[in-house]
Amino acid sequence: MKSFISALVCPKCQKRYDHREIRHLCECGSPLLVEYDLAGAGKQVNPLAIKSRPASLWRYAELLPVLDTSNIVTLGEGWTPLHTLDRLGAQYGFGTLYLKDEGIIPTGTFKARGAAVGISKAKELGVRHVAMPTNGNAGAAWSVYAARAGIAAHILMPEDAPLITRNEIVAAGAEVHLVKGLISDCGKILARSIPAHLWYDASTLKEPYRIEGKKTMGYEIVEQLGWKVPDVIAYPAGGGVGLIGIYKALKEMRELGWIGEKLPRLVAVQAAGCAPIVEAFQKKAAESQFFPNSQTVAFGINVPKALGDSLVLESLYETGGCAIAVEDTEILEAVLELARTEGCFICPEGAAVFAALKKLRAGDWLKAHESAVLLNTGAGIKYPGALSFDLPYCPIDGSV
Amino acid sequence: MKSFISALVCPKCQKRYDHREIRHLCECGSPLLVEYDLAGAGKQVNPLAIKSRPASLWRYAELLPVLDTSNIVTLGEGWTPLHTLDRLGAQYGFGTLYLKDEGIIPTGTFKARGAAVGISKAKELGVRHVAMPTNGNAGAAWSVYAARAGIAAHILMPEDAPLITRNEIVAAGAEVHLVKGLISDCGKILARSIPAHLWYDASTLKEPYRIEGKKTMGYEIVEQLGWKVPDVIAYPAGGGVGLIGIYKALKEMRELGWIGEKLPRLVAVQAAGCAPIVEAFQKKAAESQFFPNSQTVAFGINVPKALGDSLVLESLYETGGCAIAVEDTEILEAVLELARTEGCFICPEGAAVFAALKKLRAGDWLKAHESAVLLNTGAGIKYPGALSFDLPYCPIDGSV
Repeated sequence: MKSFISALVCPKCQKRYDHREIRHLCECGSPLLVEYDLAGAGKQVNPLAIKSRPASLWRYAELLPVLDTSNIVTLGEGWTPLHTLDRLGAQYGFGTLYLKDEGIIPTGTFKARGAAVGISKAKELGVRHVAMPTNGNAGAAWSVYAARAGIAAHILMPEDAPLITRNEIVAAGAEVHLVKGLISDCGKILARSIPAHLWYDASTLKEPYRIEGKKTMGYEIVEQLGWKVPDVIAYPAGGGVGLIGIYKALKEMRELGWIGEKLPRLVAVQAAGCAPIVEAFQKKAAESQFFPNSQTVAFGINVPKALGDSLVLESLYETGGCAIAVEDTEILEAVLELARTEGCFICPEGAAVFAALKKLRAGDWLKAHESAVLLNTGAGIKYPGALSFDLPYCPIDGSV
Repeated sequence: MKSFISALVCPKCQKRYDHREIRHLCECGSPLLVEYDLAGAGKQVNPLAIKSRPASLWRYAELLPVLDTSNIVTLGEGWTPLHTLDRLGAQYGFGTLYLKDEGIIPTGTFKARGAAVGISKAKELGVRHVAMPTNGNAGAAWSVYAARAGIAAHILMPEDAPLITRNEIVAAGAEVHLVKGLISDCGKILARSIPAHLWYDASTLKEPYRIEGKKTMGYEIVEQLGWKVPDVIAYPAGGGVGLIGIYKALKEMRELGWIGEKLPRLVAVQAAGCAPIVEAFQKKAAESQFFPNSQTVAFGINVPKALGDSLVLESLYETGGCAIAVEDTEILEAVLELARTEGCFICPEGAAVFAALKKLRAGDWLKAHESAVLLNTGAGIKYPGALSFDLPYCPIDGSV
């Protein structure tokens, strides 16, 4: 299994870079995307060959950036379950409703995919120190994979980032500093600090390989559906890297001839309290505006201005998709509805997608015969503070 | 894929029961074990056929109790990763050290295996209500799978059981009562309550199918090692169902001819603050005594007297294994050591096993050329209160 990576390419100005060197953003300021020799890859590998490979994201090795498999840093990430939600599907009149469950993965969130591929490639490039700002889950994933690789991690996080992720980061031996501010403040501190240390900047989209890990969600969904695309894939968009990755995967599979011309309509779901992509989509804008005073229970999608916003919006426009916002109350209702009705206790971000899909179905944007994939980005257990219940007591000598 | 279940059998008095009827304990009070027609199964399936099956515990369907696959209730459980721990293995002079990571599973703990198979079989038997006492993780797993099956769950739990599991149980729609007492008090309340409701008693070992789910860990370890057994499998023993299950799986595979005569030495690891199995093992006793005032940070193995203690002890005696206790301080050190050195952020119960294996290696009970599997029963993120760190702040206009 050899990688068919061929270059790093700027999607904005088309400038190309050598993938054997460390690169962050393009000179023009845009994130870079990884290009593959798809014609070559298509001769080497096909869906049938992939079928018998190990149950991890590394089954797509030809379409991943690691050149030497000895550099792969793995904790068994990927090949997460794709369930059907039969009861809720019937209740709300969906054609077929699927849940891709990224809670069943190391660190409990889909951030593990980006970290596994990002850290593996960093190791291959000789990196000894990675650094990033984080709201929690990404920092946890990168710290854990860095520890597995023997790479030092340096993390800046808001003091009110979830304790559960903070503990994970510290347990994994990362150097952590708390900041009385937002993730954007952490990013600014990091930018000031990096020149003195020459750390590898692993901030969202500031290295090109995280997308490559995330894109494997797209490959898996299609493979798990028997190399057929669903009508719709809906995703909780914060930084939007997963959506950019899934869109990239779909285009790669189309060029490889593994799927037909028609791509699924991609949907970006945001919280009403932080909906810059939705606002931009409604204006048919190419970029989003900073969303002030953002707030939502789904802290993973509390990103007021994403670096890759134009790539996210492009994926919506090009596939005939849309962007839609839901209220926090709808999100928490959806958490309970999914857990009670389907046994899927997922994170608020994933539940937001279900709330959004119900609206899209009710408005007939999603037709009765269509199939939709709800992408859940993390496990419900990673959000111990999201719910609170008053419970009855039974006396020790009583009965119920 | 058809099940070769043939009967329920009492390991104590050998009385046999029809598996098509609901059964709990044997009339003699012992837990019941599931028996299979292994000769028939061996004609129908073999390791090569299993190789190409889906990545879940249901790949061993012939050796599981569900007769009609339409009764399978699944969230994608099983086929968890088996890592090598190369750095720690070298540091402490292990031959090969493996970690079987049961954190990468629905609900974040190995309890999902027992619940998936137990609830599937309950569904097949026409059960509408399950009930159980729990310290948290088992109740969470059974509640979630019950929700997926459309079965009502009734749970009794100590008020100081972890909030993270309590929320999971309530989110999944179970009826929950808190108790100012221990899990044993919850069990007594349940025993008093069941006659009035005719609920299905899913307490540990009071139904025979949880073991069947847990035993798949044994099948997976052996399959993942290329159908070879390791020298040692070490397991954190609370109720000990996993160890009973793994031992049962090993004997089944031996009878099937899928492995040779020699079984791995099984090791039961307990916390020094709750070590009834260790005390019994040291006296070569057939049963354990109630361990008073038990206490440990690893709450999953805080079981002062397990119903299946004699089966656990038998598995140790018969395989030339042992039982060993470790201190809470050693457990917490091991949590950090595994996370920092190998990127494996696991639960205290799993970390206890690493602490124990270090001692067994230092004492040369485990030889330098031998292979050992550390069975980790859950994800570190499910224990947000186990660790606490003081962290430095970086001023918002500063650098690090």
